[in-house]
Amino acid sequence: MSFNYRDDSLMLHTDLYQINMAETYWEDGVSERNAVFEVYFRKLPFNNGYAVFAGLERIIQYLKGLHFTESDLEYLREEGFKEDFLEYLKDFRFTGNIRSVEEGEVVFANEPLVRVEAPLAQAQIIETALLNIVNYQTLIATKASRIKHAIGEGVVMEFGSRRAQEMDAALWGTRAAFIGGFSSTSNVRAGKLFGIPVSGTHAHSMIQAYHDEYTAFHKYARRHKDCVFLVDTYDTLRSGVPNAIKVAKELGDSINFIGIRLDSGDLAYLSKAARKMLDEAGFTETKIVASNDLDEYTIINLKAQGAQIDVWGIGTKLITAFDQPALGGVYKLVSIEDEAGNMQDTIKISGNPEKVTTPGIKRVYRIINSMNHKSEGDYICLETEHPEEEERLKMFHPTHTYISKFVTNFHAKDIHQDIFKNGELIYKSPTIYEAQKFAEENLDVLWDEYKRSLNPEEYPVDLSPLCWENKMSHLEMVKSKVKNTQK
Amino acid sequence: MSFNYRDDSLMLHTDLYQINMAETYWEDGVSERNAVFEVYFRKLPFNNGYAVFAGLERIIQYLKGLHFTESDLEYLREEGFKEDFLEYLKDFRFTGNIRSVEEGEVVFANEPLVRVEAPLAQAQIIETALLNIVNYQTLIATKASRIKHAIGEGVVMEFGSRRAQEMDAALWGTRAAFIGGFSSTSNVRAGKLFGIPVSGTHAHSMIQAYHDEYTAFHKYARRHKDCVFLVDTYDTLRSGVPNAIKVAKELGDSINFIGIRLDSGDLAYLSKAARKMLDEAGFTETKIVASNDLDEYTIINLKAQGAQIDVWGIGTKLITAFDQPALGGVYKLVSIEDEAGNMQDTIKISGNPEKVTTPGIKRVYRIINSMNHKSEGDYICLETEHPEEEERLKMFHPTHTYISKFVTNFHAKDIHQDIFKNGELIYKSPTIYEAQKFAEENLDVLWDEYKRSLNPEEYPVDLSPLCWENKMSHLEMVKSKVKNTQK
Repeated sequence: MSFNYRDDSLMLHTDLYQINMAETYWEDGVSERNAVFEVYFRKLPFNNGYAVFAGLERIIQYLKGLHFTESDLEYLREEGFKEDFLEYLKDFRFTGNIRSVEEGEVVFANEPLVRVEAPLAQAQIIETALLNIVNYQTLIATKASRIKHAIGEGVVMEFGSRRAQEMDAALWGTRAAFIGGFSSTSNVRAGKLFGIPVSGTHAHSMIQAYHDEYTAFHKYARRHKDCVFLVDTYDTLRSGVPNAIKVAKELGDSINFIGIRLDSGDLAYLSKAARKMLDEAGFTETKIVASNDLDEYTIINLKAQGAQIDVWGIGTKLITAFDQPALGGVYKLVSIEDEAGNMQDTIKISGNPEKVTTPGIKRVYRIINSMNHKSEGDYICLETEHPEEEERLKMFHPTHTYISKFVTNFHAKDIHQDIFKNGELIYKSPTIYEAQKFAEENLDVLWDEYKRSLNPEEYPVDLSPLCWENKMSHLEMVKSKVKNTQK
Repeated sequence: MSFNYRDDSLMLHTDLYQINMAETYWEDGVSERNAVFEVYFRKLPFNNGYAVFAGLERIIQYLKGLHFTESDLEYLREEGFKEDFLEYLKDFRFTGNIRSVEEGEVVFANEPLVRVEAPLAQAQIIETALLNIVNYQTLIATKASRIKHAIGEGVVMEFGSRRAQEMDAALWGTRAAFIGGFSSTSNVRAGKLFGIPVSGTHAHSMIQAYHDEYTAFHKYARRHKDCVFLVDTYDTLRSGVPNAIKVAKELGDSINFIGIRLDSGDLAYLSKAARKMLDEAGFTETKIVASNDLDEYTIINLKAQGAQIDVWGIGTKLITAFDQPALGGVYKLVSIEDEAGNMQDTIKISGNPEKVTTPGIKRVYRIINSMNHKSEGDYICLETEHPEEEERLKMFHPTHTYISKFVTNFHAKDIHQDIFKNGELIYKSPTIYEAQKFAEENLDVLWDEYKRSLNPEEYPVDLSPLCWENKMSHLEMVKSKVKNTQK
């Protein structure tokens, strides 16, 4: 294969049209105009009541030192891009500002998650990678949070690498799952790179390699004192569990018989039967680990059946977000500098009302009730507004505007942080444990009604009156423009 | 964040339990025993009648020069692995044999796709990455083939990067889509690395940046002579198409008005109305490009409605395999060397009959009728058998054994190639175009009944009588072993 793998770089991890547009802007002399884009999604995934944001760390890695390598430019030359433009790309660096919610932040539909303020051509070229990162990682952190919520206090391990959508998904997906509340990963590389605890014991193939469970368990225990035996290679209750107990009894205190693992069959029935066998043999502390295409739905169901499962292993359904494998995050231009150097807000219309964008440079505040410390909703306003200084706030639904309330005695939390300033990284990333804890704390601020996995209440994400009026006036302007085209 | 990103390597892109097992084997002195594992899946994805294999190129990249870097070993040391075992890992290289079907090969459930024959510890450690690669890439190549089949002669572009499950999926997914029959990608990096044609024009943001379509189209056309104008930023029929026509008329022969692109709304209605407007303006050669969450189902539906779409842009639904985002490929031990140096076949039993493995070192032949050049089915036999030398072959269903037939006058094609021999790469990869053509040729050998997207016939994948008997005798052996445990 003419596998053209010269020096790889993420610079070209973008759609061709981004480079075409950058070239148009550059040719027209507007490539350096200040532009503001926002990343947001229009609909929460899994019909969940909230999402857990993830992806910022990867965005930071991506933007730091982003530039066209020699082979990147050589490739574009082969594709017909001209020397004058390539000369411009040679010096391409990210020199803009990034404001973003932090990893573990709880977020909702139609609110800016990441705000890019940069020269137009730069902001355009980085769109694809930013969406690619945020869409996947936020999806998985959210799915993980749903699963963790179904489990409650139990331990939950991620081990979906073999079913992930290629390697980056295995790696960054398991990291997002940890932020969303998972306890550990099976992926050793993720352990090394991110400091996530790794876990794992042995597979069916080890039993097969020794042709019987008794021998295999013994061999494993020689080296690994903390033993979880996989008991379903031949027959869980008639062979697997009895052999595990036999070996554990023989080895006594020389090993730590932590658990058995069930990986197939009727987990409700098998876990209860195995629990009984373990207890009768005196192994009341030995845990039961279960796996086999589990997700929040099967977990809730197994719990309802009284399954005796202490530790949950989750693979395919989490790492691919099986029931909704894509988050539809978009990247929309909300304001752009004009010839005179003033920022002009901009709108995109659509036949689908929910696809109309909200113009303007905005901030998002979480309005937290000072009495009960629960959130009243999120409040999107123009950057020039300062709700944190207000005594009384009018909050209303941006579509069904008759739904409104006045809030007093609140704390307004700006949910964004400055990440890059003039191309320089000014944000200090938390540890992965801090990000997980941050997610927990953010969820504490939500009423339970927003957090249940089935039919949650809709959390209010409101526009300030100014922001709403700005949107309406831009809508009118476009409508008159369309009318003029027709004349 | 303590972002522990020292020298990254794919060596640790594996599940912890693989390393635990390798350690167990090494401690026990059996790590170098010859072991044969097979990669296969048990059920075709999307209820399709076939799958298109992809992932081999990535496997080759992964295995070439695979070794533990210093920081890999340092990390394992921190995790508690002992020096003696780390010393062993230091010299770890892949020294085994790989036989695999080639990319673009048409494959079916329960037949070995990749066969690994290697020292036990090595074969174990590489499992996770091999499955991670084959599961995703085969899934996408198959989905792409379904979509291409629905489109027929039309052009189909992949542009799902922003919705892909992280970067590797965008990159390797679009490559798999090309093998499955796609025409081009929007991902520039994939164009550079794999030589896939890249395509793309401009986005809504470019219209917004200039605040109107007329200006934006003009600016774009100054630099880009081959113009596809996106017409749905404000109002497709009242603003977008009229502006595109106006600009094209003004610029006349100085541009090549290739097409317009519809990205929202009722594509059936809009494409017909836009076609009429373009034709009336004299642009009968101008193509209509359509996109918006399309897949084989919507494409068949749009075609049935007489939609006037010439070029199809496919994103989310392809790149995430939205309707079934994981292929459940597994990696099973089928034979292992004993103390005396002889290979012993091995089986894994399950409560689910379809999860019982087929023991033995096997080959797969496609039995092609010499008269009509169509396939009679696939024939899995033990490596010692030579169906290609037989005059007459008995083929029977491995579960419903009464379904059988005798085949004469056939050509038996061994669907595997030698890829690595004693750790050395001996396979010359085809170009990406050759792989795409190979997929087409392989599909030509199938009757149409196996290729329709809805309710296809089940393609026969049969076991040779010897292979079947070998499986039955191993089943019996295990059953008696389980009985003995109970005593």
